[in-house]
Amino acid sequence: MIVNNSLDEVKKRENALSIIKDWVLNKSRESLYDLTGLSGGFIASPSEINLLETYVGPAIFEEELQKVGIEHMGGEKVLPLNRTSSGILATILTLVGENTNVVHYLAELPAHPSIPRSCKLVNANYSETDNFDEFSIPENTSLVVITGSTMDHKVIDLDNFKRVIEMAHEKDIPVMVDDASGARLRTVVFNQPKACDLGADISITSTDKLMPGPRGGLMAGRSDLIDEIKVKVNQFGLEAQPPAILAMLNGIKNFNGENLIRSFDRKDDFLTLLNQNFTNFKATPTGVMITPGDLASELKVSHNLSDNDVAYVFSFILLKEHGIITIPPVSMPGASATIRFDLSTSDAFNLDLDDLNKKIVSSFNNLKKLVINEDKCREIVFTS
Amino acid sequence: MIVNNSLDEVKKRENALSIIKDWVLNKSRESLYDLTGLSGGFIASPSEINLLETYVGPAIFEEELQKVGIEHMGGEKVLPLNRTSSGILATILTLVGENTNVVHYLAELPAHPSIPRSCKLVNANYSETDNFDEFSIPENTSLVVITGSTMDHKVIDLDNFKRVIEMAHEKDIPVMVDDASGARLRTVVFNQPKACDLGADISITSTDKLMPGPRGGLMAGRSDLIDEIKVKVNQFGLEAQPPAILAMLNGIKNFNGENLIRSFDRKDDFLTLLNQNFTNFKATPTGVMITPGDLASELKVSHNLSDNDVAYVFSFILLKEHGIITIPPVSMPGASATIRFDLSTSDAFNLDLDDLNKKIVSSFNNLKKLVINEDKCREIVFTS
Repeated sequence: MIVNNSLDEVKKRENALSIIKDWVLNKSRESLYDLTGLSGGFIASPSEINLLETYVGPAIFEEELQKVGIEHMGGEKVLPLNRTSSGILATILTLVGENTNVVHYLAELPAHPSIPRSCKLVNANYSETDNFDEFSIPENTSLVVITGSTMDHKVIDLDNFKRVIEMAHEKDIPVMVDDASGARLRTVVFNQPKACDLGADISITSTDKLMPGPRGGLMAGRSDLIDEIKVKVNQFGLEAQPPAILAMLNGIKNFNGENLIRSFDRKDDFLTLLNQNFTNFKATPTGVMITPGDLASELKVSHNLSDNDVAYVFSFILLKEHGIITIPPVSMPGASATIRFDLSTSDAFNLDLDDLNKKIVSSFNNLKKLVINEDKCREIVFTS
Repeated sequence: MIVNNSLDEVKKRENALSIIKDWVLNKSRESLYDLTGLSGGFIASPSEINLLETYVGPAIFEEELQKVGIEHMGGEKVLPLNRTSSGILATILTLVGENTNVVHYLAELPAHPSIPRSCKLVNANYSETDNFDEFSIPENTSLVVITGSTMDHKVIDLDNFKRVIEMAHEKDIPVMVDDASGARLRTVVFNQPKACDLGADISITSTDKLMPGPRGGLMAGRSDLIDEIKVKVNQFGLEAQPPAILAMLNGIKNFNGENLIRSFDRKDDFLTLLNQNFTNFKATPTGVMITPGDLASELKVSHNLSDNDVAYVFSFILLKEHGIITIPPVSMPGASATIRFDLSTSDAFNLDLDDLNKKIVSSFNNLKKLVINEDKCREIVFTS
């Protein structure tokens, strides 16, 4: 056994961080491919960074974000937030009173936990359903919530979307759309209209999901509601800070719908390529993955490593030899050792899939030679 | 009248933003002096910015912040937050139950509004006092709050500070210190110990106050409590994002206690210098200020401008001729036209006070010539 306990997990992580830090400093950021799907974008020019630390820089970026954000999201006004969850909290603090009802329709359960949690905080009654026929809006409802596409990228049916908004507006109840990934997935890939154009009063998207922006939330919608929500946002410190606002602006400007469509196609092409040499890779919403057990069963060599160790050694070979970052080397203790190659990230857009496939095959061949030598495996995982 | 309504205020602001943007792009950031006291620091090297958008960059900065943050704040662990207000919210969400008491001692009323507001959110009973003899801890108290130094930089008496912590701990009640500016003001200028070293269970500081860091909050204290609070922080999106964490790290590293002490002395020196030519400048906690009325009464020329217009024209002369940014040119509609020169900002550390005084005197002499010509005044305020 190589990675045996939390301490080993911390050690392998520190080794990975040090490898990556050295790579950026001594080689280049461009030759490193972060395919974790977990990294926030931060596009900023040196002169923008200089402007950032003046009083006016943030104001300039925020004003530009009004224009660019409304183009991306629709609505009358946008409000940049520290996270989509903070925007959901602020909306519920503003619009939902104690003992009122909040009802939520989404294509597939469960909803993002920040919605029920925020309702609980204000003592509201929350209910959610993915069965449209069961969906109804009871008396004393303060907010109707719709999820545009779920965490697993399941997209709402457009007719149901429209119908829920109609039902809410017939009773003069505001509609908040959790469009975390949906603001791009629904519109670009599924050709649906923007949530605000469908009549949503408030819509929120995650600026790090399916676009090269930073972790953060961008709210769009009716001016009057956003002005009210902004009061709560400032009171409780939920707003996005200037560097994030700059990165949101550049993230939206650099968002390329064709790349997004292409990454969905590329995922299938990539799986086809991998299937020439492997049998156990599986598709994810935005890429491919292989579990430690599945990876180990691809190895037709006898060895003494655990399945997780096989995954760690393989992912460290990918990192050290090819600068390909996946989650297992860098994850926190307790995380799964499943290896994912996410193709929706900006680094992935520049990757030639044939080339990536060759690097994976070559790393796998090295893995076969290494697994029989536990000392060498230990070295690659713990020593940079 | 020059600046007559909200639309004029928007126009003068847009003009100021455009002047400053051009200055940074065509001259340099170094020749611009932001003395608003409102700008957040963002110190970051190009290689750090590159690391920022990898999955590991944030992890590297966060790990380094643990070390540097504990040196600055004391305690067992630190937690970077989107704002000090978000940290206060998270602490109260975690530690304060419905119908329990929260009592707050501070050197001078009122407390920062985020404290009573967060208590109200969880339906707790909140009380605050600046009279130490009146301070007591009733039964059923869940949290004791202490403010290290107030928004006006009034610093708590050290004996009272220690006594309140003792009283709380005698009853096993945790103590949260709002040390927004105090973490530096109390320790560096007033030689008091760090809040955690005095026994505080949780202490929070604002990383943009009296140090060259970004807008944000840094919490320090007991590991077990911070781990609990972190759960709420992540659930509701209250954590600092990676660019802010990087800037906090560099802000603390670039914090210079001697500069801070010097800015307090310099404020008095500066007022003495200004008093050679003016009679109405006044000291603020971190610099000097003059109200529109006081500025107008310094003018011994007859003119038709309002007091506010005089302040706008003067502050635009400072900006256009000397690159000195004060609040009036860049403020949002409705803000006061009082001119403040804040000496606690990093830009101010590089300023020679004699030189700054000369620039103010020269701008004032130009103001005297300009006020009699309303068209020229209009031009300087509205045309870059």
